[in-house]
Amino acid sequence: DDLEDGRPRMNDIEDPFVSDPTRDPRLRQITAKPCNAETAGEDLAEAFLTPNEVFYVRNHMWVPVIEDTAADAHGITIELPDGDVKTYTVHDLKAKFKQYSVTAVLQCSGNRRRDMTEHANKTNGLQWGPGAISCAKWEGVRLRDVLKDAGLPLDDLPEDAQHVQFSGLEAYGASIPIHSALDPRGDVLLAFKMNDLPLPRDHGFPVRVIVPGTVAARCVKWVSKIVVSDEESDTSWQRRDYKCFGPNETRDLDWDKYKSIQEMPITSAITRARKKSADGNHVEVEGYAYSGGGHEIQRVDVSLDGGKTWDQASLVDDSEQDSGSKAWSWKRWRYEGALPTTTEAAAFVVKATDDAYNTQPQCYKSIYNLRGNLATAWHR
Amino acid sequence: DDLEDGRPRMNDIEDPFVSDPTRDPRLRQITAKPCNAETAGEDLAEAFLTPNEVFYVRNHMWVPVIEDTAADAHGITIELPDGDVKTYTVHDLKAKFKQYSVTAVLQCSGNRRRDMTEHANKTNGLQWGPGAISCAKWEGVRLRDVLKDAGLPLDDLPEDAQHVQFSGLEAYGASIPIHSALDPRGDVLLAFKMNDLPLPRDHGFPVRVIVPGTVAARCVKWVSKIVVSDEESDTSWQRRDYKCFGPNETRDLDWDKYKSIQEMPITSAITRARKKSADGNHVEVEGYAYSGGGHEIQRVDVSLDGGKTWDQASLVDDSEQDSGSKAWSWKRWRYEGALPTTTEAAAFVVKATDDAYNTQPQCYKSIYNLRGNLATAWHR
Ligand SMILES: [Mo]
Ligand SMILES: [Mo]
Repeated sequence: DDLEDGRPRMNDIEDPFVSDPTRDPRLRQITAKPCNAETAGEDLAEAFLTPNEVFYVRNHMWVPVIEDTAADAHGITIELPDGDVKTYTVHDLKAKFKQYSVTAVLQCSGNRRRDMTEHANKTNGLQWGPGAISCAKWEGVRLRDVLKDAGLPLDDLPEDAQHVQFSGLEAYGASIPIHSALDPRGDVLLAFKMNDLPLPRDHGFPVRVIVPGTVAARCVKWVSKIVVSDEESDTSWQRRDYKCFGPNETRDLDWDKYKSIQEMPITSAITRARKKSADGNHVEVEGYAYSGGGHEIQRVDVSLDGGKTWDQASLVDDSEQDSGSKAWSWKRWRYEGALPTTTEAAAFVVKATDDAYNTQPQCYKSIYNLRGNLATAWHR
Repeated sequence: DDLEDGRPRMNDIEDPFVSDPTRDPRLRQITAKPCNAETAGEDLAEAFLTPNEVFYVRNHMWVPVIEDTAADAHGITIELPDGDVKTYTVHDLKAKFKQYSVTAVLQCSGNRRRDMTEHANKTNGLQWGPGAISCAKWEGVRLRDVLKDAGLPLDDLPEDAQHVQFSGLEAYGASIPIHSALDPRGDVLLAFKMNDLPLPRDHGFPVRVIVPGTVAARCVKWVSKIVVSDEESDTSWQRRDYKCFGPNETRDLDWDKYKSIQEMPITSAITRARKKSADGNHVEVEGYAYSGGGHEIQRVDVSLDGGKTWDQASLVDDSEQDSGSKAWSWKRWRYEGALPTTTEAAAFVVKATDDAYNTQPQCYKSIYNLRGNLATAWHR
């Protein structure tokens, strides 16, 4: 009998993480199995496009094994509301559809969760610092083109085409609203390349969904199935984990009360502070600002006195660096100033404003939620 | 000689406001000439669709005179980047294009400016309370369809088609980005009707541009000319007045530094508080919450202790009431609770969250700008 209490014995379960890739030591590991690791401030500050090897990793399970030689044969099954099923291999996708490149940030809804825990209250979830965000150039085919080819009538959508569900090889799943998937200026891709290289295994090799402007939790890696449905994906990642309840709503939650996080709100963070004078008073501070939904950062306000008075940081990145229909990327910023003393460094505050003139909340307490999602308060 | 110091004598200028319509006494007048008048809290609280006669009025000049019998002959000239010019009368528009109805809020960028003045600093502009906002059902033809018919190649836009400029008969002008104008789900209308009635004179009779989710300053009334151009409208309403500089940017402004306000950020306000018990402690508080860009209100948080603890208000309006491609309307909300004493009523605070989980800023000081635009801080 192979069973103990009706289950296989521990030693009989092969560790599904045994084939996970080796990670760059510069990544700051939060959990090993599954791998969750954030990008160091230094690496966020250094480049507009985060190098693949230090791009933050957020895995819900193990990394599926697909040999390089098997990549082109990897299939994606597409199911339409009328029951039609069609399968495209990666080879088919590359041969049949025009490829596009899009520069876009990916960000975990839990980015900066640690700050919310520290400044508000206990939160459930990985305790990320400000490094659960990175920016890359993605290349692949448009989901819109593929769905059209598969037979979805884009100009006369059936009533039951409300959501597009994605499933990955490791069993993760999530969905996006149909209009996000089909927006001609939404730039939703089935991506094969990241910063001009084949997708690394940790980032979805051989193919990952990229939904610019939207929480990375919808950008399903190792995608193998796409279903157009009248319902959202039924996973807890879609229906429970990635929502924000009110600060007081901590028990007996009605999970259907609020919408799943999709478009991300505006945020900013400090990534690096360096002394520019011998006495250490003159300091250069750097960081990023990002808003979801294709909104462009307009202004980054910094304060040396905890928010009483403000000045503007210089924006390092300009819109020329973006490829794609909207502003899907971040803007890095830089500010030089004289801080009174290093011990008062906590008085340095940053907040950003986007082109809809949305701004960040001042305090974590007012946006506190049990899951610690979207910890976008002014960063200190 | 008709001139005095080179100008016509005062008595020789006919008062251009002499033909302005009579306004409903329930409107709260801020200026008479031009007419600027806000909707009373009572009227904002009472109905999802604000009745035409108490819909807030924001005029930059006088109300042009077009007789009812001349309305159908009113012409709109359309200029394309290649120099092509075409004119449609209102009659042409109604006869040639399908009509759509859209429920949408209009809001002045100066809504609640008075609060910013009071809580932060002096602001330039009309000192609106929370009533420079209203909601109506608009009916008309799609700007997209008209531009297409006029010869603009929608699927192969020329490089110099960047903005759509609108001019009104009284000389007001403004523009929106081309992609806002053409978005198939943007519902931009040339509207003839407001709440099932012909447009009132104060609201643009016979035809007004309606750009749902966008600041009302772009919804040009009495529109007579539409130009597709590589440039924004060159009026100061487009290039100067409706922008937000930082709290510290109060002189030597570089007007090109920031984008014109288009999509509006999330806001909410209290419109009515009524005693529900004899001692006046039990109170019903009502208000609205609105976010631009088609974002739907998710949650309205209220606090009885100035923001230390929170509860959720009930949302009175549901999405069923919306017509149009996105959530262009407001949600009214209601909350019943026991306020300690009436003198502490100022401790009642409201803030809203939309479906991108954007929230309102806590204080006016952090969003202070010289023009007092977008005074969206938590409302007390
Ligand atoms: Mo995430
Ligand atoms: Mo306005």
